[in-house]
Amino acid sequence: MKTIKTLREKKNTAILLIHCPDKQGILATVTEFLNKNKGNIIYLDQHVDRQEKIFYMRVEWELDGFAIPADKIGEYFETLIAAPLQMNWKLYFSDDTPRMALFVSKMPHCLFDILARYTAGEWDVEIPVIVSNHETLKPVAERFGIDFQYFPINRENKAEQEKAEFDLLKKYNIDFVVLARYMQILSEDFVKKYPNKIINIHHSFLPAFAGAKPYHAAHERGVKIIGATSHYVTSELDAGPIIEQDVTRCSHVDTVQKLVRKGRDLEKIVLSQAVYKHLQRKILVFKNRTVVFN
Amino acid sequence: MKTIKTLREKKNTAILLIHCPDKQGILATVTEFLNKNKGNIIYLDQHVDRQEKIFYMRVEWELDGFAIPADKIGEYFETLIAAPLQMNWKLYFSDDTPRMALFVSKMPHCLFDILARYTAGEWDVEIPVIVSNHETLKPVAERFGIDFQYFPINRENKAEQEKAEFDLLKKYNIDFVVLARYMQILSEDFVKKYPNKIINIHHSFLPAFAGAKPYHAAHERGVKIIGATSHYVTSELDAGPIIEQDVTRCSHVDTVQKLVRKGRDLEKIVLSQAVYKHLQRKILVFKNRTVVFN
Amino acid sequence: MKTIKTLREKKNTAILLIHCPDKQGILATVTEFLNKNKGNIIYLDQHVDRQEKIFYMRVEWELDGFAIPADKIGEYFETLIAAPLQMNWKLYFSDDTPRMALFVSKMPHCLFDILARYTAGEWDVEIPVIVSNHETLKPVAERFGIDFQYFPINRENKAEQEKAEFDLLKKYNIDFVVLARYMQILSEDFVKKYPNKIINIHHSFLPAFAGAKPYHAAHERGVKIIGATSHYVTSELDAGPIIEQDVTRCSHVDTVQKLVRKGRDLEKIVLSQAVYKHLQRKILVFKNRTVVFN
Amino acid sequence: MKTIKTLREKKNTAILLIHCPDKQGILATVTEFLNKNKGNIIYLDQHVDRQEKIFYMRVEWELDGFAIPADKIGEYFETLIAAPLQMNWKLYFSDDTPRMALFVSKMPHCLFDILARYTAGEWDVEIPVIVSNHETLKPVAERFGIDFQYFPINRENKAEQEKAEFDLLKKYNIDFVVLARYMQILSEDFVKKYPNKIINIHHSFLPAFAGAKPYHAAHERGVKIIGATSHYVTSELDAGPIIEQDVTRCSHVDTVQKLVRKGRDLEKIVLSQAVYKHLQRKILVFKNRTVVFN
Repeated sequence: MKTIKTLREKKNTAILLIHCPDKQGILATVTEFLNKNKGNIIYLDQHVDRQEKIFYMRVEWELDGFAIPADKIGEYFETLIAAPLQMNWKLYFSDDTPRMALFVSKMPHCLFDILARYTAGEWDVEIPVIVSNHETLKPVAERFGIDFQYFPINRENKAEQEKAEFDLLKKYNIDFVVLARYMQILSEDFVKKYPNKIINIHHSFLPAFAGAKPYHAAHERGVKIIGATSHYVTSELDAGPIIEQDVTRCSHVDTVQKLVRKGRDLEKIVLSQAVYKHLQRKILVFKNRTVVFN
Repeated sequence: MKTIKTLREKKNTAILLIHCPDKQGILATVTEFLNKNKGNIIYLDQHVDRQEKIFYMRVEWELDGFAIPADKIGEYFETLIAAPLQMNWKLYFSDDTPRMALFVSKMPHCLFDILARYTAGEWDVEIPVIVSNHETLKPVAERFGIDFQYFPINRENKAEQEKAEFDLLKKYNIDFVVLARYMQILSEDFVKKYPNKIINIHHSFLPAFAGAKPYHAAHERGVKIIGATSHYVTSELDAGPIIEQDVTRCSHVDTVQKLVRKGRDLEKIVLSQAVYKHLQRKILVFKNRTVVFN
Repeated sequence: MKTIKTLREKKNTAILLIHCPDKQGILATVTEFLNKNKGNIIYLDQHVDRQEKIFYMRVEWELDGFAIPADKIGEYFETLIAAPLQMNWKLYFSDDTPRMALFVSKMPHCLFDILARYTAGEWDVEIPVIVSNHETLKPVAERFGIDFQYFPINRENKAEQEKAEFDLLKKYNIDFVVLARYMQILSEDFVKKYPNKIINIHHSFLPAFAGAKPYHAAHERGVKIIGATSHYVTSELDAGPIIEQDVTRCSHVDTVQKLVRKGRDLEKIVLSQAVYKHLQRKILVFKNRTVVFN
Repeated sequence: MKTIKTLREKKNTAILLIHCPDKQGILATVTEFLNKNKGNIIYLDQHVDRQEKIFYMRVEWELDGFAIPADKIGEYFETLIAAPLQMNWKLYFSDDTPRMALFVSKMPHCLFDILARYTAGEWDVEIPVIVSNHETLKPVAERFGIDFQYFPINRENKAEQEKAEFDLLKKYNIDFVVLARYMQILSEDFVKKYPNKIINIHHSFLPAFAGAKPYHAAHERGVKIIGATSHYVTSELDAGPIIEQDVTRCSHVDTVQKLVRKGRDLEKIVLSQAVYKHLQRKILVFKNRTVVFN
C-alpha cells in the first residue's frame, strides 16, 4: 500500500548521540573534528546537566564531502575524541532505515495511527511484522499487507511464547518494538534484550495511575485533567524513562466511557510522537530519564 | 473491513435540538411534555444567551415506553409545544445512522484518521463514498473497501463536475459532507445545498491565516502557537461557524516543514472531534456561531 | 486600598445548589416552583450522574419580583420541594459577601495574586485576616491593610495554636479558609470544623507527587509536564476533592529550580480559579469528587 | 517593600547574544575563544536558520577567572571574532540590573502581577517609575512605593506629553518599557527611540483580532479558544515581533464579560513571561521574528 507520494526527503547524513562527564571544551572539540574533516553540520543541539555534571549532544552532518569514510567514522571518533573524553556515544546513518515490530492486543486506535503514518510515508521506518496475543486485529494487518503473528499467552506458555516472539524478531532483524496498547506484561528477560528499545504507551499521566484501569482510577479520584505517557519499557511496570506526555481536560460530566474515548486520541498521538523522536535518534537515556532533543 | 468489535452500544432514543426566543418556563414546558408522556430523559443540556435572548436546548430520551409513537413525535411536539413558543427544532432518532461523504485531495492524514475510527466502530456513521479531485488516495479507499470517485476540476468544468458530485451524493443518500483536506473551493451553489452540513478543516487558528498557505504565513509572522479549526462551510471562505479548534506550541526552531508536520496531528484530531459532535447531533448554529453541547 | 473601580455589578439573586437521588421530573418541579412564583431564572445548570443515579443542579434567580420573601425561601423550598424529593440543598444570596481567611507561610506568589484580585474588585469577598506560621509576609499584609496574625507552630503547641486560630476565625466570622502555600499540615480536628470550606493548592498534578517536595520528585521521575491542583482539604493529606488542575510543559533542560519557577505561575492561577468558583457557589461535593458548574 | 527574601542568586557572568551569516565553524570559534581564556560556560544555546542561513547564539560564562577584563571583552571579541565573521552581537553583564518603566491605564491586573514579582524578588530588575494616562492606578503605585507620573493625553498634547515622558525615562535611566495594558497608541517617533525595548501585551491571539476590542471580536466570530500575545512594539500596530503567546478554551456559554475575565489571567502571565525572557537577555530579533532561547 506504499503508493502515496513520500513526505520526506532523505539526506545522506551521520548522527552522533553523545553523553559524557562535562568539562570545558567538549563542544568545541567535537565541532572542530567535524569541521576539519569537511563535515557540514546540519543539526546541533547540546545540553549540560549542571547538577549531574553531564554533557549531552546530538550532532548531524552531511556525509557528502566528509573526509572520513562512513565505515571508519566510528573508529576514528572513538580513538581521537571519545576515548580521551570518556564519552558514551552512538553513531547512526540516515540511510539505515530502522525496523520496527508492533505488538498489539484488541484496541486498534494506536495501530491504525502508526500504520497510517507508515503508509503515508510520514516516517522513515520499516514495519515487517505485527505481533499479538489476540486475533482481533489480524484483518487490519492484512489490509495493510503486514505479516500478523498470533501468540496467545497464558501463565504456562509465557516463557515459551516470548522465546518464539524473540526468534521472530531476530528473523525480521527488528531494531525496536512498539507496544501499541499491548495488554500483556513482558517478562524481565524479554525486556532486557531490548534496553531502551521497547516503547510503550500508558493511558495515564504517569506516575499517576500506573498499572491497570487508569481511567477508572482517574474517574474515581475526580481529576480534572487526564493524560497519556509514552516511555521506554524497563523491568519495573510503568516506571521506565518517560519520552512524551500529553493531557486533556475532563470534568464531572465525563463517565469512565467518555474518558476512555477522550484518552484514545491522546494515546495515539503521544505514542506516535515518541516513536517519531526515536526514529530520528533524538532520544538519550540517562539515570531513567530521557533527554529528547528538539 | 468492519470486523473489529464495535465500541458503541446503541440505545433507541430520540433527540431534540431546540432554539427559540427566551422566556420563562420553556425548560419546564419541554421537560413536563416528556415526563408526562413517560419519556425517560437520559441527556439534557440547555443554555440561555442572555444578550441575544435566545434559549438553546438539547434533550435526549428513551423511545422505549414513550407514549407517543416515534413517527408522531414531530407533529405532536410542533402542535403542543413548538408553535406556541416559536421554536426552531430538529428531531433525530439514534437508530438513523447518518451517511457521510468524504472529499479529499492528496494528503491522507485526515482521511486515514476518519477511516480508522469508522473501521474501529468509534462512530455511528456510514461512509459509502470518497470523492476526490486527484487520484492519489484511490489506493487508500480501495484498501478500506469504499467507493472512490475521481472528479478532476478546472475552471471550465467546475460547474459540471459539481453537478455530477451532487448527483452522486443524492444517489448515495448522503446526509453530510466532510472535507478532509480537500484543496478545492466549493462553489456557492454547491455550499447552499448543504447548509451546516459540510464540515471543513482549516490548517490555522482562524480567523488568523485564512486562505492559502497558512503555515507559511504563520512562520513568516513568527507566531509561538499554531492551530487548526474545523467549521461548517459557508459561501465566504474560511468564515463559517467554528465547531472546534486546537493549538500546539512552536518556536523559532520550527521550519515551515516542521509546522506542517506538527499541524497534521492537530488537523486530524480537530476535524474528527467536529465530525463526532456533528454525528451526535450536539451542534446548533445561530448567527454564524455554534452552540456545541457537552 | 479598595480604591480601584469595581469590576463587578451585583445583582440581587438567590442561588440554590441541589443534589438528590435522580428520578423523573425533578428539573421540571424546581423550575416550575420558581416560575410560578415569578422568579426570573438567570442561570441554570444541571447534571445527572447516571452511574450513581444522582441529580445535581445549580439555579440562580432574581429576588426582585419573587413572590416568596427572601427569609422564607428556605422554609418553603424545604416543605414543598426538597423534603418530598429527599434533596440535599443549600441556599445562598448574592448580597451575602463571603468572608475568607488566608493562611500563608513564606512564599508570596499566591498571596499576592489573591490580594491583587481582591483589591482590583475581581472578586466579591471580604478578607479581614491573614494567618501565618512565619512572619515573612507580614509586610505584604500591612501594605494591603489587612490584619496579620502570627501563630508559630511546633509539635508541642500545635493543638493550642490551632485553637487560637479557630477563635480568631470565629471572631472574624470567617466562612472559608484558603491555604495559599501554607506549609503546615492542619490537624484532623481543625479540618473537620470546615468541611469543604478549606481550599488548598498542591504544587503537583495530583494524585502524582502527593506530599513533600513534588518538584524534586517530578524532576527525579523525568516527567514532561508538571501541574498544580487545588482541592478541598480533608483529613487525608492531598486526597480531598479536586476543584481545579492545570499543567505546563517541561523538559530535560529544566532544573528543579526552573520547575519551581514555572510552577509558581500555575499554582497561583489554579488556586485563584478554585477560589473564584467557590465564591460563585458553583461547587458541589459528592463522594470525594466535585461537580463544578460552568 | 522589598523585604521578602530574594528568590534569586546572582552569579557574576557575561552574556553574548550573537547573530550572523551561517558558515562552518562559528560555534567552535566562539567556544574556543571562551575556553582558551578560561571562561567557564554555564549556558550555551545556538540555532541555525537554514532557510535564511543565519546563525544565532546565546552564551553565558563566569567572569570569575576569565582572562580578559570585563571592560575589554567587547573590544577583544569585536576584533578577534565578530569582525571577521560579520557578527551582530550584544554583550551584557549579569550584575547590570535592567531598569524598567511601566506604562499603565486603568486595568490593574498586569501591573499587580509585575509588582508582585518585583517585590517578591522573582526578577532581577529595578522599576523606578510608573507612567499613566489616567490617575486610576496611582494608589497601587503608592502602596508599592513607586513614583507615579500622570500624563493625560489627547490629540493636541500628545507630541508634547510623549516628549515629557521621554525626558522622564531619560532622567530615570530607563532601559526598557513595559506596556501593562496601556490603552494609548505610542507615536512612531517614541517607538523608534526604543527599538525592541518596548514590550506590549495584546489581548488576543495575534494576528487574529489586532486592534481594538478583541474580546468582542472573538465573541462575535465564535472562536473556541482565546489568547494573549506579548510582542515588541513597532510602528505598525500589533504587528511587532511576537515574544510569547498563550491560549485558553472558551465556548458558547462565555459572554464577552467572561472572555474578558478569562483573558486577564492569560494577559498577565504572558506579559510577565515575556518580560522575564527579556530580563534574562534571551531574546534576539531578526526580520520581525524573535529567537527566544530556552
